[in-house]
Amino acid sequence: MQQTKILLDEKDLPDHWYNVVADMPNAPAPYLGPDGNPVPPEAMMQIFPEALVMQEVSAERWIPIPQEVREALTMWHPSPLVRAHRLEKELGTPAKIYFKNESISPAGSHKPNTAVAQAYYNKEAGIKRLTTETGAGQWGCSLALAGQMFGIDVRVFMVKVSYEQKPYRRSLMQTWGAEVFPSPTDMTEAGRTILAQHPDSQGSLGISISEAVEEAAGRDDTNYALGSVLNHVLLHQTIIGLEAKKQLEMVGDYPDMIFAPCGGGSNFGGIAFPFFADKAAGKKIDLVAVEPSSCPTLTKGVYAYDFGDTIGLTPLMKMFTLGHDFMPPGIHAGGLRYHGDSALVSQLYKEGLIDAVAVPQLETFEAGVQFARTEGIVPAPESCHAIAGAIREAKRCKETGEAKTLLFNLSGHGHFDMTSYERFIAGELSNFDYPEEAIKESLQHLPNVG
Amino acid sequence: MQQTKILLDEKDLPDHWYNVVADMPNAPAPYLGPDGNPVPPEAMMQIFPEALVMQEVSAERWIPIPQEVREALTMWHPSPLVRAHRLEKELGTPAKIYFKNESISPAGSHKPNTAVAQAYYNKEAGIKRLTTETGAGQWGCSLALAGQMFGIDVRVFMVKVSYEQKPYRRSLMQTWGAEVFPSPTDMTEAGRTILAQHPDSQGSLGISISEAVEEAAGRDDTNYALGSVLNHVLLHQTIIGLEAKKQLEMVGDYPDMIFAPCGGGSNFGGIAFPFFADKAAGKKIDLVAVEPSSCPTLTKGVYAYDFGDTIGLTPLMKMFTLGHDFMPPGIHAGGLRYHGDSALVSQLYKEGLIDAVAVPQLETFEAGVQFARTEGIVPAPESCHAIAGAIREAKRCKETGEAKTLLFNLSGHGHFDMTSYERFIAGELSNFDYPEEAIKESLQHLPNVG
Repeated sequence: MQQTKILLDEKDLPDHWYNVVADMPNAPAPYLGPDGNPVPPEAMMQIFPEALVMQEVSAERWIPIPQEVREALTMWHPSPLVRAHRLEKELGTPAKIYFKNESISPAGSHKPNTAVAQAYYNKEAGIKRLTTETGAGQWGCSLALAGQMFGIDVRVFMVKVSYEQKPYRRSLMQTWGAEVFPSPTDMTEAGRTILAQHPDSQGSLGISISEAVEEAAGRDDTNYALGSVLNHVLLHQTIIGLEAKKQLEMVGDYPDMIFAPCGGGSNFGGIAFPFFADKAAGKKIDLVAVEPSSCPTLTKGVYAYDFGDTIGLTPLMKMFTLGHDFMPPGIHAGGLRYHGDSALVSQLYKEGLIDAVAVPQLETFEAGVQFARTEGIVPAPESCHAIAGAIREAKRCKETGEAKTLLFNLSGHGHFDMTSYERFIAGELSNFDYPEEAIKESLQHLPNVG
Repeated sequence: MQQTKILLDEKDLPDHWYNVVADMPNAPAPYLGPDGNPVPPEAMMQIFPEALVMQEVSAERWIPIPQEVREALTMWHPSPLVRAHRLEKELGTPAKIYFKNESISPAGSHKPNTAVAQAYYNKEAGIKRLTTETGAGQWGCSLALAGQMFGIDVRVFMVKVSYEQKPYRRSLMQTWGAEVFPSPTDMTEAGRTILAQHPDSQGSLGISISEAVEEAAGRDDTNYALGSVLNHVLLHQTIIGLEAKKQLEMVGDYPDMIFAPCGGGSNFGGIAFPFFADKAAGKKIDLVAVEPSSCPTLTKGVYAYDFGDTIGLTPLMKMFTLGHDFMPPGIHAGGLRYHGDSALVSQLYKEGLIDAVAVPQLETFEAGVQFARTEGIVPAPESCHAIAGAIREAKRCKETGEAKTLLFNLSGHGHFDMTSYERFIAGELSNFDYPEEAIKESLQHLPNVG
């Protein structure tokens, strides 16, 4: 019988995270303050525990995973590596297609990989509560779960329109014991200011971040947690690629190309960085970030210092950006609607060491449905981007006859996104035109530093 | 590091199903026609393929699993056995708690275990289309997935009120390529009759069954598929218990008690029957079917011949029943709202070889939330019954100091049941009174045969 799932024992769960900074040809560009000066690590300790700030600025190649974090991860890790025999057959491709199944976490995505680490370090630092923002709810759910596991309270500021339209993810957070508030709230200065100006505000991710950061900054027992973009978040996600590498070794294989969705970058960094170590050592491998063509940060953005959030509260990061006040079209892959990208991913892309491709919405859903009908799992709209990238390449291989080995990150399932599938099947979804004018406009507002 | 997940390789996937009939002290009571005479196997072949009918009446202990079915099952099997360390710790119990995680199938429950087998045998018999009914949609989703895997069309008659209120499971079926119709439809005589009498009918499982069976009976290329109750369905589910047994052996353990939800019986039969083989050989083990106290078939029903469906189309089965026209209260565990039970489960219970316990709704949701907050996974309301049974026993062990080994079937996740959790957390759910008068009434309508 042909092998489908390649499984690792729990004892083979990685005991170190891989830090890509150690293998980058140039040191990462520092975070800057609004004055253009580098932000000292101490400044970040107002809202992050020291251990995470140290990881944020570390250049060590291997960073040990605490035993408590490894034990928490065993709830769903090591995750299966799956050979997509049925998809290959359906495509009639000579390519071999593997995917890492991160959809099996209790929260349904790869996000808890970093949430448990962040909850652990905050707990160790004596923190009693974490605040965060969430849009559609994937990250809020992951932090709610992690907080529950480490006995730390979690307060989620959920974008009001999502709070009302996505009650299931809200209920999921509450089932795991988190407090969830529709943002803007009257609990913070930021929220009250917005409500005074716009009493009917439906909220935005930018507003929710402001509320979460304000609350964390104002209380000694409270910190803030972020689900992507930052170096330490990408670091925690590298268990995906580290496991996949071991699993491919078990079947004597190695990928020619890796595909991952790319919004803030932790999905891509998680699976691709551990293979970048080989690439830096001379191995030939293509690492492909797949982004939505209507929010094409890497493929159409500029490489410049910009804010990580919409309203300009964060330090400035050197990254590919469409401008911090660019409002991406309403695609269904909510996790990829981000104006910028991880500084690490951006720098690697700028230096020509990784690749990027932009895919329109309908192609991603076509790929998702084809995947569901062959491999069973209904993928999250974000994950559909990676699938679409892999399917494009598999079809190319069919034409050229190349038997490439392709690997992609199935970062999450679509159980809470069935409305999107319903609309796609009913023919109600469309591609968005490339928002050229809006991007041109928002790029005018880049801060003048760096 | 303590071990959490006990994994089997794909090569250890069972190659035979276990047929409990071989170890029952008495042969199963035959199915009867309305005239009181046994139904010949040939009569069932109008809507089922011969291979399944032969399994339905087989007394062979081991029935080989076709290679194609095993390959289909590898999509999610062998499923993990998990040691619930965190739940044990939270309960402060000396008991060891294990659960079999069947929630990881693409459809989110154990139901596809039989759906792929049924789709395979129908495909082999040259059948082009399967019809079935579904209420909340768990079974319809499983058959849609299996039909897609074996290239067989699936037509689902979905109870109209569910079709409208549960659009996500409907979309899931459609994503897997099934046709889904709100029942009653005008496509069948049964549907048209109902609509003529009640133009605004919201449907019922009984009506949907009538439509699905009528369509299967009337077309040569079309068969019918059922998701529980029948012997061959329970047979296909025994891979759950067979795997669990191997996995417990790997850690040198054996259960003192097994808990599973019990509606139609395939959930319970799936995990418990392979251990019944040991019990029949003298081993001490308690097999506990957990049912809702508002639909207490085993614990409060009578053992008699009754119809399997509400309106009386099926053969008569000797089983514990509350009366075929008993309408269970609207508990959220839709899969357990069944008036009867598997004939095999019923006979074993009648003969005192297995146990049953009834649990009120609020206790099941309390158990589900406690499980979600310790073990991460949000369980289906049906699965919450097994968890509640195991928690009761674990608490008893805490009082007595017994270090029993408990095993339960986590038959599915609750991702499509978050409305139920939302209402529970908001304090809007209640227990139902034991529907004594309604049961007394429906028991008056038992058919006068057998």
